Amino acid sequence: MGSISIGMMGLGVVGTGVINAILEKADALADHAGAPVQIAKVLVRDLRAKRPDVPKGLSLTTNPADIVNDQGIQVVIEVMGGEHPAYEYIAAALRAGKHVVTANKELMAKRGPELLHIASEHESALRFEASVGGGIPIIGPLLEDLAANGLSAVNAIINGTTNYMLTRMASDGIDYDTALREARERGYAESDPADDVDGTDAAFKLAILASLAFRTEVRDTDVFREGIRRLTPADFDYAHELGYVIKLVATARKVDGRIQARVHPVFLPNTHPLAKVDGVYNAVELEGDLVDWAMFQGPGAGARPTASAVLADVLAISRSIATGAPPPALPTIGPALPIEPMAELRTGYYIRLRVNDRPGVMAQITTVLGDLNVSLASVIQLATAMHRDATGGDEAAQAAEIVITTHVAKEADVQEAVHRLSALEPVDEVGNLIRVEERTK
Amino acid sequence: MGSISIGMMGLGVVGTGVINAILEKADALADHAGAPVQIAKVLVRDLRAKRPDVPKGLSLTTNPADIVNDQGIQVVIEVMGGEHPAYEYIAAALRAGKHVVTANKELMAKRGPELLHIASEHESALRFEASVGGGIPIIGPLLEDLAANGLSAVNAIINGTTNYMLTRMASDGIDYDTALREARERGYAESDPADDVDGTDAAFKLAILASLAFRTEVRDTDVFREGIRRLTPADFDYAHELGYVIKLVATARKVDGRIQARVHPVFLPNTHPLAKVDGVYNAVELEGDLVDWAMFQGPGAGARPTASAVLADVLAISRSIATGAPPPALPTIGPALPIEPMAELRTGYYIRLRVNDRPGVMAQITTVLGDLNVSLASVIQLATAMHRDATGGDEAAQAAEIVITTHVAKEADVQEAVHRLSALEPVDEVGNLIRVEERTK
Repeated sequence: MGSISIGMMGLGVVGTGVINAILEKADALADHAGAPVQIAKVLVRDLRAKRPDVPKGLSLTTNPADIVNDQGIQVVIEVMGGEHPAYEYIAAALRAGKHVVTANKELMAKRGPELLHIASEHESALRFEASVGGGIPIIGPLLEDLAANGLSAVNAIINGTTNYMLTRMASDGIDYDTALREARERGYAESDPADDVDGTDAAFKLAILASLAFRTEVRDTDVFREGIRRLTPADFDYAHELGYVIKLVATARKVDGRIQARVHPVFLPNTHPLAKVDGVYNAVELEGDLVDWAMFQGPGAGARPTASAVLADVLAISRSIATGAPPPALPTIGPALPIEPMAELRTGYYIRLRVNDRPGVMAQITTVLGDLNVSLASVIQLATAMHRDATGGDEAAQAAEIVITTHVAKEADVQEAVHRLSALEPVDEVGNLIRVEERTK
Repeated sequence: MGSISIGMMGLGVVGTGVINAILEKADALADHAGAPVQIAKVLVRDLRAKRPDVPKGLSLTTNPADIVNDQGIQVVIEVMGGEHPAYEYIAAALRAGKHVVTANKELMAKRGPELLHIASEHESALRFEASVGGGIPIIGPLLEDLAANGLSAVNAIINGTTNYMLTRMASDGIDYDTALREARERGYAESDPADDVDGTDAAFKLAILASLAFRTEVRDTDVFREGIRRLTPADFDYAHELGYVIKLVATARKVDGRIQARVHPVFLPNTHPLAKVDGVYNAVELEGDLVDWAMFQGPGAGARPTASAVLADVLAISRSIATGAPPPALPTIGPALPIEPMAELRTGYYIRLRVNDRPGVMAQITTVLGDLNVSLASVIQLATAMHRDATGGDEAAQAAEIVITTHVAKEADVQEAVHRLSALEPVDEVGNLIRVEERTK
């Protein structure tokens, strides 16, 4: 038995982690794979870049053809990230009959179905466990261990950066900017944090999870997303007072033949399993018709956890090569189902208003909500400060914060209510609108 | 492509759940398996038993040979439970070239290595995802998704009956007998609860998990076990006061080439991930050198969750049959490693003493502990009642409860300390000794 020959594409943090793990665990991997696993070539952008953590003696190249056209290379590991040129390189590798393992969530969310189709045509494997949830086994369990289930829901905390920030905001009362600065200092946030804080990264991962869970094409553009920039310390205080925590939750459901897919901040009851997932950890909750409920937790990022997932895929492919078996099966993903418009979502809501506390203001607010069939679950009214009114006149008005939670209502009705509330004369500002999850398990 | 023909052994709660799931999901299973999955025969003890939940028209038999010798049957599902005659039937089925799926934890814990050896000789698959953690994917992730990791620890809540009882004792202050009665009323405990409350069931499951995690033979008899019968409401009160919860935890570690495997009540810090696993839910925590930490949670028992696990195994085997591929690989389990004697365990301890509160009693106690290098982490002393002393004399003595937690100490030293403490004249009773886990994640 010859060795399993790997072409690596990308040598950043994850790539370096994968290479070091392959070298460090050569014997164990050979045992599991049934043949030694060896790195033949590594595609990099710059041959001269300093790479203190990378072992000497690797064969580096800047030309992807050196990997794609190398007949000896059986497996390509892509850890460059981004849609281009990763798509073109992976497509070329699959067409050249190579098996591919990728950690690329953006690529799989945007072009997964096309790539799986190319893999299928060329009888190649295409695996991507590392694209969601870092080291947490989640794609394997979805496709294999829970395969007998009809899955109906995925709820997940799948962005470690924002979960770290929200955990810090909840525990220490710091504001968004301070939390972001801390996340940057710890290396959890990039200089441009938009993909994380605006929910884009989570939307990529949710599109992948939803596609596999429901076996239907869900693209990143199908996922509604709202980030965490608008959250204030006041929201965390009220959440705490009401028995909730605030998390950026990615939710996908299959309801009546339609797909609901959304990433946004959520008030989760303290007793909700995801409420206890703190810091940079990730967790994915699944609902299935046989298993009922299962949850997977672990490190959502990092070089070694991601290497754990990449190497699991490499081992599965290597075992098939070593035993002469067909490559690991590709997931079958059916055509797209209709996406449920956000306007039709039904859930609870938290609404924070800043008002001039004049007689009758609560009556005006409750009339607006009542007219739209939005019923109140709780109301907190806090006088916050005396302030000059906006006209600069002498009358001091009492500024108050009113916080409302609603029973389950329709998103369109609540949005219309917020629109009408913001037009009420005593309402200074709708401070925030956050969806509330009432289910505890 | 012909159909996949199944022989079922056992038609209790789990067997009925499996059969109903196979019939209910015929189309989806055929899709996943690549061929229709059909139940050819079902082995039962009594043909005439009433089975209101079992669909009509099944071919029942009381003769295992009807399944083992049926050339058409490719896969045997064993859900009878117990070591005998399950061992003999499964061995015969494997020798007849059939693939076997079993949910039998006792059998796999006691005879797993022998059965895997027989399966290997006959190139058959032997899968047992349902033997641990009900519907929670755990064996799949251990063998596949985390295969690149060197695993060093498994910590698990894997007995739903006791976890339900402990949750109730913690939340409502009820005693052991009341909790057991409740568990029986809800169908969580059997009329003879010994296997659950004495830790035997958890020890079976831990032996399986440890064997797979460390790839070394760990038998149920290697697992130290101590049950929950001695836990009192007082222990739960003190745990709460000290910031702990009490759980029956199954722990296996690989330390310096030896295996540590134990099931016993543990004081877990409130912040420990397993501390939040309540009711009949199960959870398995793993530590690996790449992934660092991962946890899997879900329903630990029940007909449908167990059917989820059984059918995942059936599908994996069926796909290999349908595609002509070799059957799913058997786990490789190496020879046994030495078992670390309990006496050498190093952990924290909680000791509850009932004493006559005379001057100098604390000094006596601390001297005993100090002599054995057991250092105190906390002491609570509560005067509980005035009581007549044991001699029936007139002097009223102050009865007090002293609760000590220790820093990490050696089990042998703590046991010796408890022995010496119980011999002290003012010590009425050592109420309980419970190990304390200090790690929070």
